[in-house]
Amino acid sequence: MTQASDARKTILTGDRPTGNLHLGHYVGSLRNRVKLQEEYRTFILIADVQALTTHFEHPELLRENTLNVVASYLAAGIDPEKATLVRQSGIPEIHELFVYFSLFVTVNQLQQNPTIKNEMRLGYNKGHSLAFLSYPVHQSADIAVFGAHLVPVGQDQVPHIEEARDLVGKMNAQYGTELIEPEALVGTAQALPGIDGQEKMSKSLGNAIFLCDEDKEIRAKIQKTKTDPARLKIDDKGHPDICTVFKYYEAFFPEETAAVRQKCENGAWGCGHCKALINERLGAFIGPMRETYKRVRADEGYLWGLVNRGTLSARETAAKTLDHVRAKMHLKA
Amino acid sequence: MTQASDARKTILTGDRPTGNLHLGHYVGSLRNRVKLQEEYRTFILIADVQALTTHFEHPELLRENTLNVVASYLAAGIDPEKATLVRQSGIPEIHELFVYFSLFVTVNQLQQNPTIKNEMRLGYNKGHSLAFLSYPVHQSADIAVFGAHLVPVGQDQVPHIEEARDLVGKMNAQYGTELIEPEALVGTAQALPGIDGQEKMSKSLGNAIFLCDEDKEIRAKIQKTKTDPARLKIDDKGHPDICTVFKYYEAFFPEETAAVRQKCENGAWGCGHCKALINERLGAFIGPMRETYKRVRADEGYLWGLVNRGTLSARETAAKTLDHVRAKMHLKA
Repeated sequence: MTQASDARKTILTGDRPTGNLHLGHYVGSLRNRVKLQEEYRTFILIADVQALTTHFEHPELLRENTLNVVASYLAAGIDPEKATLVRQSGIPEIHELFVYFSLFVTVNQLQQNPTIKNEMRLGYNKGHSLAFLSYPVHQSADIAVFGAHLVPVGQDQVPHIEEARDLVGKMNAQYGTELIEPEALVGTAQALPGIDGQEKMSKSLGNAIFLCDEDKEIRAKIQKTKTDPARLKIDDKGHPDICTVFKYYEAFFPEETAAVRQKCENGAWGCGHCKALINERLGAFIGPMRETYKRVRADEGYLWGLVNRGTLSARETAAKTLDHVRAKMHLKA
Repeated sequence: MTQASDARKTILTGDRPTGNLHLGHYVGSLRNRVKLQEEYRTFILIADVQALTTHFEHPELLRENTLNVVASYLAAGIDPEKATLVRQSGIPEIHELFVYFSLFVTVNQLQQNPTIKNEMRLGYNKGHSLAFLSYPVHQSADIAVFGAHLVPVGQDQVPHIEEARDLVGKMNAQYGTELIEPEALVGTAQALPGIDGQEKMSKSLGNAIFLCDEDKEIRAKIQKTKTDPARLKIDDKGHPDICTVFKYYEAFFPEETAAVRQKCENGAWGCGHCKALINERLGAFIGPMRETYKRVRADEGYLWGLVNRGTLSARETAAKTLDHVRAKMHLKA
């Protein structure tokens, strides 16, 4: 589907394929994408090349994780007939546009990037790779190559989209290109805490409940999930606002929160009762996703078929963008 | 011609298309390339994308200058049947390999690069672009993508080839790729001074004699060329070793140097006589090159044909390299 024949705005979103997706991804982005795909022309980028920036030592895992991520997408309700699944390594036009963008940003500007500054603060400044420094510029090329109008992000990611917008604006002003200036589509999603109570659920922190977890894995994880540490006896009055289990009710089962809060604050039930209920609810919530995950994950040919089809279609868009850019830059054959 | 069917070693050389080529290029590289093309599989890269690093404001000049450079090549004796002429913008695989290389070099290492250090020393450190910092890595990708064994350079460029060799070695060690580790082929060529006596002839310094200069332009430039400033009268004894005209004899007409030195040191002729002779010699030397230049430069279709044919052929080599790299990096479709 070309942009000319499609009046909808374009969205770019995606993930680095570094593992299976979990409830944190579901709350933070997947749930939203399932809605957005109905309204927008959607590209979902599986950023395998960018994943190398931190995972360059094990590129063989990227293939497996690409399949894991795609299976998680389907499990969460992404419809490959509506959203285009794109493997970044299949779109070399991104690298070319990145090289052109790199004319318009100084090293000094990039070193002001909060992530880089944080690295420098931690003393890693001598160690960061050119790929790491370049990351925001490469991401800007992802966005511009597909002509994305909107990039769904959390509030903390807004500066990245501003950088992309700035680069596109400079390029357009210098060469008369008509690349689309992207805007952040800021969601209201909060980060979901991990089962250990840490602020963010994350595979690398080992505190995640995955979309493909079995019921017994869910139960074992909920068993370990932090509640109100002051509650020692079943009839102690609890404080749901400092309880991670309660945050899961809020994120996934808001219709339960009033009753759960009341029973907890009154000491009407203990954490065990509360966990038994959320196990049941999470089981019913994750169960169908897990079954979809397992079914599609078993058929690698089907998953690669989806990825390859989406990537080929997306590449047509990327090739058109670069054709336009090269023409304006007098670089066309 | 594929590498498999060609037992010769491969050479990569080239220029940024920022103007017509001059006698400094002839002495510094062209003369050598004309010899090398007989012995080596030769790629000559017209680095239009890299030229943007310093000339991003006027990309429209790159097309004109690509034609000027190619016409200068033919004038100097480059044989497009022997050497493959390549337009960098036609080889996007370079950008992709550059992105992979950027995993293996730190920002700190790049800032140790003498050119960057010099910029920083001059106070431009806040202003240099990401493209400028990345330049040596991008050049390494030029070399590796064509599988060059040797890169003809001056002594001052050896560290750049060492950087390329280092990157290729790291990539091979990490991914089991079999990219060729390039070596510098260090020439004995000295820099040719400009007519103003400055160390290096350069278009941007306005002190160059071009391969396409008319006789009257050559005469006017030689007229202005610095000789021994202590010689005031015709029969003053001269000092050829501080005379720029004498350096031109040494570079182009070594068979004349003994006689010229004697007449100059004895005060047997004046600078005017000496300049009249070199005008004649340079006219005879440049004349055939200029005529070739003018003839081929008038036929843009012919020149683009050469460039496009060479670029397509070179792209086959580049595509094979990237196919190999992607396979080893598990990034293949």
